Amino acid sequence: MRILGIDPGIAIAGFGFIDKTGSKVSPVQYGCIQTEAHTPEEERLHQVYEGMLQLIDKYEPEAVAFEKLFFNRNVTTAMTVSQARGVLILAAVQRGLPIAEYTPMQVKQAIVGYGKAEKKQVQEMVRMYLKLASIPKPDDVADALAVAICHAHSYTLNSRLNEVLRK
Amino acid sequence: MRILGIDPGIAIAGFGFIDKTGSKVSPVQYGCIQTEAHTPEEERLHQVYEGMLQLIDKYEPEAVAFEKLFFNRNVTTAMTVSQARGVLILAAVQRGLPIAEYTPMQVKQAIVGYGKAEKKQVQEMVRMYLKLASIPKPDDVADALAVAICHAHSYTLNSRLNEVLRK
Repeated sequence: MRILGIDPGIAIAGFGFIDKTGSKVSPVQYGCIQTEAHTPEEERLHQVYEGMLQLIDKYEPEAVAFEKLFFNRNVTTAMTVSQARGVLILAAVQRGLPIAEYTPMQVKQAIVGYGKAEKKQVQEMVRMYLKLASIPKPDDVADALAVAICHAHSYTLNSRLNEVLRK
Repeated sequence: MRILGIDPGIAIAGFGFIDKTGSKVSPVQYGCIQTEAHTPEEERLHQVYEGMLQLIDKYEPEAVAFEKLFFNRNVTTAMTVSQARGVLILAAVQRGLPIAEYTPMQVKQAIVGYGKAEKKQVQEMVRMYLKLASIPKPDDVADALAVAICHAHSYTLNSRLNEVLRK
């Protein structure tokens, strides 16, 4: 099963495609959709949306997992990122993909086993899970891969739970 | 010139089409795009986007004016509305329409002549400008018409300014 993880943003939206085979995960492709500052906001939103569609069409994921935004300080940043998140979600819906959302705490819990883990610990675990030589940069990419792995784990757990419940 | 004013939202997005002829404005169509609670968020975003495209294709505006969100309390609401705003802007960009944004204060200034005017005053002025029998309901519709009228005024002012500067 191929999963696309997304860390939403307007300047940088991190993406990470992983394949889940049994309980194992492997990297397919990862990077970020970038837009330039000083470009009108509406144009940047359009670029993020088009970038997302192109990635989906190229790597054909079966599910998309989004990091749930959590802001308690800068409302302006929260609004800007949310606009980008809206068009990223729209692109996934238009391709008929199921969407999952995870809070940063859920991601940490799934990856490190501790909801208040340090960012560095999460990144190192992502690197190990995917057998990468180094931690993907920038942080947005590592975060996108983390939410994809989180979804892979949740999916496994839910499948097992359903099996148990069916018995 | 036909202007579409938008008051973004996920449950209710107000819209108002007006025609600007010289310095006069007249109503064309107004109402709201509504989505049902308990519908998955991604589906609601898709409905808002599709609703916007349909409206644009039916009433063929030449410009779209958005109310600029201003939140200082509920970040969660700000993020939800921003996601909807993102897909509304995207729809306009995809139809090649120029986009303008106005803060609530700019709208009040343009409509009532006073940036801290009461909501009720703005709505009553909208009713008068458009020669309507009553104030459009819900508030989102009146707000959408207000931002459309605001853009009509700004447009007139900018055109005059350009004329003066060209002389």
